[in-house]
Amino acid sequence: MEVITKIKDIQNLCESLRIKGKSIAFVPTMGYLHEGHLSLMRKGKEVADALITSIFVNPTQFAPNEDFESYPRDIERDKSLAEQNHTEYLFLPSNNEMYPKGYLTSIQIEGFTLKFEGVTRPEHFKGVATIVAKLFNIVKPHFALFGQKDYQQTLLIKQLATDLNFDINIITCPTIREHDGLALSSRNVYLTKELRQKAGVIFHTLENAIKIVEEGENRRKVINANLHNILRSVPEIKIDYASSANADTLVEPDLYLPGDRIVLLIAVFLGKTRLIDNAVVSVPSDPKVKPYYFV
Amino acid sequence: MEVITKIKDIQNLCESLRIKGKSIAFVPTMGYLHEGHLSLMRKGKEVADALITSIFVNPTQFAPNEDFESYPRDIERDKSLAEQNHTEYLFLPSNNEMYPKGYLTSIQIEGFTLKFEGVTRPEHFKGVATIVAKLFNIVKPHFALFGQKDYQQTLLIKQLATDLNFDINIITCPTIREHDGLALSSRNVYLTKELRQKAGVIFHTLENAIKIVEEGENRRKVINANLHNILRSVPEIKIDYASSANADTLVEPDLYLPGDRIVLLIAVFLGKTRLIDNAVVSVPSDPKVKPYYFV
Repeated sequence: MEVITKIKDIQNLCESLRIKGKSIAFVPTMGYLHEGHLSLMRKGKEVADALITSIFVNPTQFAPNEDFESYPRDIERDKSLAEQNHTEYLFLPSNNEMYPKGYLTSIQIEGFTLKFEGVTRPEHFKGVATIVAKLFNIVKPHFALFGQKDYQQTLLIKQLATDLNFDINIITCPTIREHDGLALSSRNVYLTKELRQKAGVIFHTLENAIKIVEEGENRRKVINANLHNILRSVPEIKIDYASSANADTLVEPDLYLPGDRIVLLIAVFLGKTRLIDNAVVSVPSDPKVKPYYFV
Repeated sequence: MEVITKIKDIQNLCESLRIKGKSIAFVPTMGYLHEGHLSLMRKGKEVADALITSIFVNPTQFAPNEDFESYPRDIERDKSLAEQNHTEYLFLPSNNEMYPKGYLTSIQIEGFTLKFEGVTRPEHFKGVATIVAKLFNIVKPHFALFGQKDYQQTLLIKQLATDLNFDINIITCPTIREHDGLALSSRNVYLTKELRQKAGVIFHTLENAIKIVEEGENRRKVINANLHNILRSVPEIKIDYASSANADTLVEPDLYLPGDRIVLLIAVFLGKTRLIDNAVVSVPSDPKVKPYYFV
């Protein structure tokens, strides 16, 4: 595995790979790699000839009150894990390489990005869209891989690629979970042992909501109340949001219709640690399942 | 010359040119082509193997009160001129192709873009940055060519390319002028014969300011007053701005220093027609020329 720190070097490398007819898969990360990231790398190696991973803790997607400084980092371990999982080129730029003196540009996506994460973290998605566009121009991949755990982010990246005409195939991979269902996240290390034991309730909540939707519940307020009620069973949890929405548009209708894909979105604080998770479920179109609004 | 209207088609074409090792020059225009545009095409053909021109009157860079609807168009004449000037592929997308239903993304560049044109046309540069980024991703050129007539725009494009890591060589070409010095512009066609005869004063004003700077004038207020005074000699002219600034940063110091490159920037209304022009001049570093602040 080759470690590359300069933009010009990786641009030249990727250009030469393209000219040789090699397809490129790209896994952008903020490091502190876990099985979620590694599953993206393995998928990337499956779909393309060359696999490039980046590690860059992007300051512009953190608000001043957030955990940019304390975000967990372990670059030696990351290098080893990336190499073991087919990464051929690891792009590891400095802050100054990505945002040199005189930097002035940002990318804003309106609409659905202003909801959910966009409410709590108003500048977050601007930072994400901007760094991803930069990385896309630097790596010029054919495929870019993102985890479903950051659900709204996956919609944002697809919108970015479509709107700015990036000729890149965006691939979303399933969330990887611990034995109790907790979604893997670099931030899980923040949890005390006691809080970690309670974190399984998030997945349990999602599972329960999937079940009621599959049984015919299609009233948004009832589905959302169900999410809230189960989360509230753990007093240490502070709910940021626990909601359902159309999985493609994040529109929130009063009633979902048969065949609709719904995303269940959860963000909670467990102590000081903010955790997010989600699940997608389809409203049954089977006429034997009676949606509630027919009752 | 091949006319291409679909994004996917030109992306595939450009990708195949790149894989064949052909370099691509790109001239983005809003059509109603004049000698300024044609000079960019000829330069493009000089520096690269393949020349691609686009014609798209971009709605997002016009304010609601501006001339998007009435902007002059003559596509048959444009096709003929582009072909005569080495354009091999003409990209001619529809509005719906560039901004389909559900479009949500824009690019903002802070700092110097908020001055001069950015004051009078606050949304203009956001529209320009966004469409140029889209076109860059569609055409993936090695070289992109812009006219110096839109001076602040050339700075914006360079900033965009640097900040978002477009691996594209931005080439600025000199303004092409009429016999009396009026900068060629598609909007010149709006001028009545009478106003057209008075429009030469803009270039005359620039020439005069160049002369006083080269003779040692380096006080910004004096240079700016000189611009205003000459323009005011034509009563039909309404000055939007007539200013000098550092040519690289658009910073406006009280005194320019020996060796500084200054840009003289003019925007005026002549009747209802808004015209812009500019010139770059260096403050003499020759010790025989005494800057005023040594007097």
